[in-house]
Amino acid sequence: MADPAFRSLAELGRGLREGAFSAREITALYLGRIERAEPRLNAFVEVYREGALAQAEAADALLRAGVDLGPLHGLPIALKDLIEWQGRGCGAGSKSWERRRSATTATVLRRLLAAGAVVLGRAHMVEFAFGGWGTNPLLGTPWNPWDLTTQRIPGGSSNGSGVAVGAGLAPAALGSDTGGSVRIPASVASIVGLKPTYGRISLAGCVPLSWSLDSIGPMTRTVEDAAILLGALAGPDPEDPATAGLPAFDADAWRRLPVAGRRIAVMDEADFPLAVEPACLAAFREAQAALRELGVSVETVRLPFRFDDLVERNGLIIAAEAYAFHGETIADPARPIGEAVRGRILRGRSIPAPDYIAALRGRSEEIARFGELMRPYDALLTPTLPCAPVRLSEVDEARAPLAAFTRPANYLEACAISLPGGFDAAGLPVGIQLMAPGMGEDRLLAMAAALEAATGHGARAPDLSPLGL
Amino acid sequence: MADPAFRSLAELGRGLREGAFSAREITALYLGRIERAEPRLNAFVEVYREGALAQAEAADALLRAGVDLGPLHGLPIALKDLIEWQGRGCGAGSKSWERRRSATTATVLRRLLAAGAVVLGRAHMVEFAFGGWGTNPLLGTPWNPWDLTTQRIPGGSSNGSGVAVGAGLAPAALGSDTGGSVRIPASVASIVGLKPTYGRISLAGCVPLSWSLDSIGPMTRTVEDAAILLGALAGPDPEDPATAGLPAFDADAWRRLPVAGRRIAVMDEADFPLAVEPACLAAFREAQAALRELGVSVETVRLPFRFDDLVERNGLIIAAEAYAFHGETIADPARPIGEAVRGRILRGRSIPAPDYIAALRGRSEEIARFGELMRPYDALLTPTLPCAPVRLSEVDEARAPLAAFTRPANYLEACAISLPGGFDAAGLPVGIQLMAPGMGEDRLLAMAAALEAATGHGARAPDLSPLGL
Repeated sequence: MADPAFRSLAELGRGLREGAFSAREITALYLGRIERAEPRLNAFVEVYREGALAQAEAADALLRAGVDLGPLHGLPIALKDLIEWQGRGCGAGSKSWERRRSATTATVLRRLLAAGAVVLGRAHMVEFAFGGWGTNPLLGTPWNPWDLTTQRIPGGSSNGSGVAVGAGLAPAALGSDTGGSVRIPASVASIVGLKPTYGRISLAGCVPLSWSLDSIGPMTRTVEDAAILLGALAGPDPEDPATAGLPAFDADAWRRLPVAGRRIAVMDEADFPLAVEPACLAAFREAQAALRELGVSVETVRLPFRFDDLVERNGLIIAAEAYAFHGETIADPARPIGEAVRGRILRGRSIPAPDYIAALRGRSEEIARFGELMRPYDALLTPTLPCAPVRLSEVDEARAPLAAFTRPANYLEACAISLPGGFDAAGLPVGIQLMAPGMGEDRLLAMAAALEAATGHGARAPDLSPLGL
Repeated sequence: MADPAFRSLAELGRGLREGAFSAREITALYLGRIERAEPRLNAFVEVYREGALAQAEAADALLRAGVDLGPLHGLPIALKDLIEWQGRGCGAGSKSWERRRSATTATVLRRLLAAGAVVLGRAHMVEFAFGGWGTNPLLGTPWNPWDLTTQRIPGGSSNGSGVAVGAGLAPAALGSDTGGSVRIPASVASIVGLKPTYGRISLAGCVPLSWSLDSIGPMTRTVEDAAILLGALAGPDPEDPATAGLPAFDADAWRRLPVAGRRIAVMDEADFPLAVEPACLAAFREAQAALRELGVSVETVRLPFRFDDLVERNGLIIAAEAYAFHGETIADPARPIGEAVRGRILRGRSIPAPDYIAALRGRSEEIARFGELMRPYDALLTPTLPCAPVRLSEVDEARAPLAAFTRPANYLEACAISLPGGFDAAGLPVGIQLMAPGMGEDRLLAMAAALEAATGHGARAPDLSPLGL
């Protein structure tokens, strides 16, 4: 962690308060890196250069005045291009929305601003957030920073957010996750991606993919940073009924949970829904060993459902709801919309309502089964992905193998986190996933932080010297 | 409303966004008035002159950067001296705590700062918030701005907050209300004072008087401003369990409620717990007539309990809990603590536990009775006080007549608001009170705003020309 651009939010916050640097200096550092890296990495739709510097100066002035807005004060964040900011652009990754301007400001953004965070800009995403590879043929696919020679997938749909944090162009970003869209790009960027429980963070003012399954989630360098962002964003919002009645998130409670003596459930490899590359398998097994070292009881469990089935039903709900929202937009053949995404949304048109209803109704049963299974355990361990980031040329848009381990969490109204799991022989990152029943963030984060410390895989940064960084 | 110092928060916010003035100019205006008025009015324990200007400049910079934190952005607020701000003074009105420094920051203050509000300073208060007259023999009693010739009571316990807003030294302030401590000083200053439902606003980081009865409440020039502050402050806080599970406050819902056709309950004058001055009675009757004019059905009701009884039980809980918290402090005779307050707290020592428990237990029954009575009504109308502000020389510390109409609201876990009710023959202000069952703020505010508009009494400002204002 020699390079200051790869410091965590927590470290940056400490340095800021110790006077090691100002918010303006931090912001300028990331803006400078963005300027040098963007021609290749293409992580951002728009960079708010002047606005970010002005925000940072205001944050510095407030600190001098004795006003400390908390752990995000003066720290830069990137936003996925589906978070509305009144009067500014918000294209949800679609060329057809290039000139769209927001009429409202998302609750998550209002909370970020109230916490004194500095907005660096809007990060690229898969069009309408519908896709796991991270491709965007019309606006450009961000470049995965772990291989500057051959373009590899950045993972989606929050591709620009993942690349920005993975390449040290931002210390943190917000993504959204409907079937893995925070965790997949986190895994291939070797960063942390948290999909919180549905309803934990308001969706008001975020362009929906599937309002039954969407979650806004932090993408960060550390588990602690994910908890810091969740703490700033979580809690009831009158504009999002799904948040009503759920407790606020105490951003420090997870720190107080002891690790030794806890029990972790591990997905039986026999239940894997698809073949998993050796490096991913090795990371999965290494995580188990690391947990045992920490005194955690690690127990392989058989799942009461097939991940495949949940993935299928999750996909059906997404397609139906995406068509309900975007159907009119994509119906116009003159609009510039990528063919793969158009096809995924169009599929929704032909889904019979009873199938959609059955998929929704079946959830409570599976959620109950998952809760029953997990009663003795703090989290379920799985790989995040079956593979390290593949070459862009290898992408098969007709398939969605990257979501095989992630989509079940959305269907189960669970919370889940992807952590850096190390690297394959070619130096490409793999991830491991922890998943817990809804509202289980405290225990999820406690186990994730323990695992992160035990493996140390999050500490490595990609070599970006060819970009002059 | 010619004088800009008597503009509402809503008006100031509009002017700020229209470029009529900057946050720095607004802040400097109030700081200048404070400087000229303080030698006489003595509203503030400490003024954060430099900090407030720096905060205001940061708020201006943010607005220029396109960051708008909402309706409090850049607007000055005064705080009662019991709201903690880490590292700063917080004396809870006690000379014995003159050098006390806060170890934490109150949730309400964190929310104010996150909303971009500018903190002018800490306002005086009755020692430990225990007293309705507004006197403070050791730190000085603020001067009621409605009579610059003879010192009259500022009302308590939030005396400095009331004087600051009443005299146009701040457009708004936060007070706290355990038996009337927001509403009493509001009434004698001719401003609006809202005591929200218990648990609606976090008490974390506020020095308690009685943790079962305390509410933090806005003191403002208009009902709309009270709603704006409530909107910024209300909502669950992990640090205050009493806030858990209660819905957030939608700061605009009350605006959408129609007024005509609603029903208001009016306290029967035969139920008044004490004699009420003609001017207060006239205001009370005028309010009824104004509501009728608006198409509201105004119906006199008999209460299912005696206000006297609730006042007595409320006082018993306060004394017992105040002794539990402050007992050790006041036990030391060497500490400089006012005799009246010391006596009120000491009373708590001799209250038998069964009496305290009975007073707490009896609440749910009375709350249910009040809910039953109020089912057809939006609010209950009463006078706020039995009198206009009396001369300081007339105060009888052994009696608490000013809380006769206000304390029942705290006992009943109700919300209540005091509004300007006009002036007596000597030009001294009187108030009217609306009270509604817990969580009834929407309807309470809708009725209060209608009444405010119908009577127009809030528009008058005191003549402070002898102070050079």
